[in-house]
Amino acid sequence: MRPIVALLTDFGTGDYYVGALKAAVLSACREATLVDISHDLPPHAVEEGAFLLEAAYRTFPGGTVFVTVVDPGVGSSRRALALEIPGYRFVGPDNGVFSRILKAEPAARLHEITNRALFRATVSATFHGRDVFAPVAGLLAGGLPIETVGPAVSDALVLPLERCHQIGAGDWEAEIVHVDRFGNLVTAVPAEVVESLLEAAGGEAAGILVYAGAARLPLAQTYADVAEGEGCALLGSSGRLELAVNQGSAAKELGLGRGDKVRLRALGPAASGV
Amino acid sequence: MRPIVALLTDFGTGDYYVGALKAAVLSACREATLVDISHDLPPHAVEEGAFLLEAAYRTFPGGTVFVTVVDPGVGSSRRALALEIPGYRFVGPDNGVFSRILKAEPAARLHEITNRALFRATVSATFHGRDVFAPVAGLLAGGLPIETVGPAVSDALVLPLERCHQIGAGDWEAEIVHVDRFGNLVTAVPAEVVESLLEAAGGEAAGILVYAGAARLPLAQTYADVAEGEGCALLGSSGRLELAVNQGSAAKELGLGRGDKVRLRALGPAASGV
Amino acid sequence: MRPIVALLTDFGTGDYYVGALKAAVLSACREATLVDISHDLPPHAVEEGAFLLEAAYRTFPGGTVFVTVVDPGVGSSRRALALEIPGYRFVGPDNGVFSRILKAEPAARLHEITNRALFRATVSATFHGRDVFAPVAGLLAGGLPIETVGPAVSDALVLPLERCHQIGAGDWEAEIVHVDRFGNLVTAVPAEVVESLLEAAGGEAAGILVYAGAARLPLAQTYADVAEGEGCALLGSSGRLELAVNQGSAAKELGLGRGDKVRLRALGPAASGV
Repeated sequence: MRPIVALLTDFGTGDYYVGALKAAVLSACREATLVDISHDLPPHAVEEGAFLLEAAYRTFPGGTVFVTVVDPGVGSSRRALALEIPGYRFVGPDNGVFSRILKAEPAARLHEITNRALFRATVSATFHGRDVFAPVAGLLAGGLPIETVGPAVSDALVLPLERCHQIGAGDWEAEIVHVDRFGNLVTAVPAEVVESLLEAAGGEAAGILVYAGAARLPLAQTYADVAEGEGCALLGSSGRLELAVNQGSAAKELGLGRGDKVRLRALGPAASGV
Repeated sequence: MRPIVALLTDFGTGDYYVGALKAAVLSACREATLVDISHDLPPHAVEEGAFLLEAAYRTFPGGTVFVTVVDPGVGSSRRALALEIPGYRFVGPDNGVFSRILKAEPAARLHEITNRALFRATVSATFHGRDVFAPVAGLLAGGLPIETVGPAVSDALVLPLERCHQIGAGDWEAEIVHVDRFGNLVTAVPAEVVESLLEAAGGEAAGILVYAGAARLPLAQTYADVAEGEGCALLGSSGRLELAVNQGSAAKELGLGRGDKVRLRALGPAASGV
Repeated sequence: MRPIVALLTDFGTGDYYVGALKAAVLSACREATLVDISHDLPPHAVEEGAFLLEAAYRTFPGGTVFVTVVDPGVGSSRRALALEIPGYRFVGPDNGVFSRILKAEPAARLHEITNRALFRATVSATFHGRDVFAPVAGLLAGGLPIETVGPAVSDALVLPLERCHQIGAGDWEAEIVHVDRFGNLVTAVPAEVVESLLEAAGGEAAGILVYAGAARLPLAQTYADVAEGEGCALLGSSGRLELAVNQGSAAKELGLGRGDKVRLRALGPAASGV
């Protein structure tokens, strides 16, 4: 089976950086299938990188190695890391980009990448993606055991990412963690919170309302459940509550963006809609 | 021979959607070569998707499977389709995105995708690209017969796409169906119309003029046939008449865009140019 | 070993052009691994193409074939070329896009591509990427000897690209040749000039100052050597002097862009910083 190496960076696509990254992976593992997750993360957007990585990784076949290079501290004393969880391995800088993986997989094996024998012959101080992470990812994809990259460590940087908390009996507050290409607003509310609220409210019939800015949005199954141009909230494909406008942009219509807050309120069986 | 799966979506490249789509194809067909046609269709731009798909598919090697996800009705009652024509198969929503393929290949075999055993274990209501179309495409690429996906159907949605009609003896009118990255304006005029007009006008010497907005454009073979900054009309690489400006943007210079109309007039042997 | 074909164009990613290019490569060499360098060169930006190609090619494994299509003169009398240097081959138009390769590799073997038997059956006058360059690249990747493409030639177009010259004992002047996604300004100053200046100035301790617009920038090893928001000059990953702002955009902060000039001045052991 051909090894898979998946790439996630903030390199953009207008430079030679992505090409060089892939060239370095292929130099270490000629048979690799390369898959782009995205190279259009905003420059230095570590938290966005953590979000996309978590949203994507479980869809990949077992054995996939992920190279995640959002690396404002390249060449500084920040460490280079390799992670192993059942089925997947990851390489990238120790700057929080693995925060969501490490929360989801607390038993991850962590190694600092220090074995210079694995790097490109010359290591640029400003392009560890090409000279450190890509070669190591290629070698891991080709079968290199993770302990070869360097010593085991246990203290990777984990950012305080999950901003979803209960503020009353049937009330929750959560941040918007991502705005997608369609203007859908992905919140930090996981499926479990929505389900427990629905249960507490007496089943799906009773429902949940989501307060987002000045809007009150009904819970739906999919975009087309509401009329074109109408807003709704739904469990999105990344397993979180999303605010959406059918064939429109919730970000534009609601005037909300990354970091803004929404509130969830469960409606009882006799709910008036508040 | 390695199977090829080609992808065309409106997902953009800033989210995890394209990565997840590819991961799902590879999960179903590990040896597939993945080729992006484009992921930068404007959101929900079904007609643009139909155009790009038709313009690209014949260049691919026989056996290629195309995944076309421009799917504003995801999760609604719109059907999921698989198509087979000699050499190629396609999967995507039944919303008109296959209109041009079906017009070009009226004998296409059509099947509704209903066999849930082929889907990902959990199907999100909002991401059938990842959970339905990609797995089915991967399985088809790996050799699954098309009838396995579900029952044969015969009534796929076909949009009224071709807007090119004769308005007089030597006069035709046609819409602009695509504006490319260079500002070239691709019209709905097929090569056959240009050829028949040239013939009617007494051969190439007599020529054709294209009236686009206030401009009168001579028929050329390639951009460089006219001076830098000058406009012309030519048979473009998708087999349609294009309006172009040599090393400039016809869209900008002529102030025209998608949906606007142009007129073709054949010039007789003694033509004055009108 | 699977052949690698790397692609560099100004096609953008919103059309079918890149997909068709790849389809044509795969039609000629089904087992090829395709790698995008970039498709986001500004339209017709031959010099930018020459820069990205030189910056990327040496990272690729030996045997890689590069397809470089920035081709404002498509269909005109400009020639189509194939180049061979130790380890690599290149195809593209004879318009200067290979200028940097040819300067770095003066012993390159050059052939004009004239053998129509290698092209697609029908050659569009406006899309030689798909109909000429991609098929030839695929065939070269599959093992075709370069002399098969057409006669040897020796007079490829080389643009006057290197704009870095000494203007005094310890003073150099150079153009900015590229602005990357992060706003880093890549100058035409090669590593050798920086090293010789450092030597002349009495070793690293003495340093170099770079005058860029109104700014005076210290020489650093990496972005994080200066405080966030501060500017510096450093040897970048393409082997040239770069101007950068730590976690900011040098292009914005300094108000400089492609084609603008900077000056380097070596500081003696007792340097006052001027």
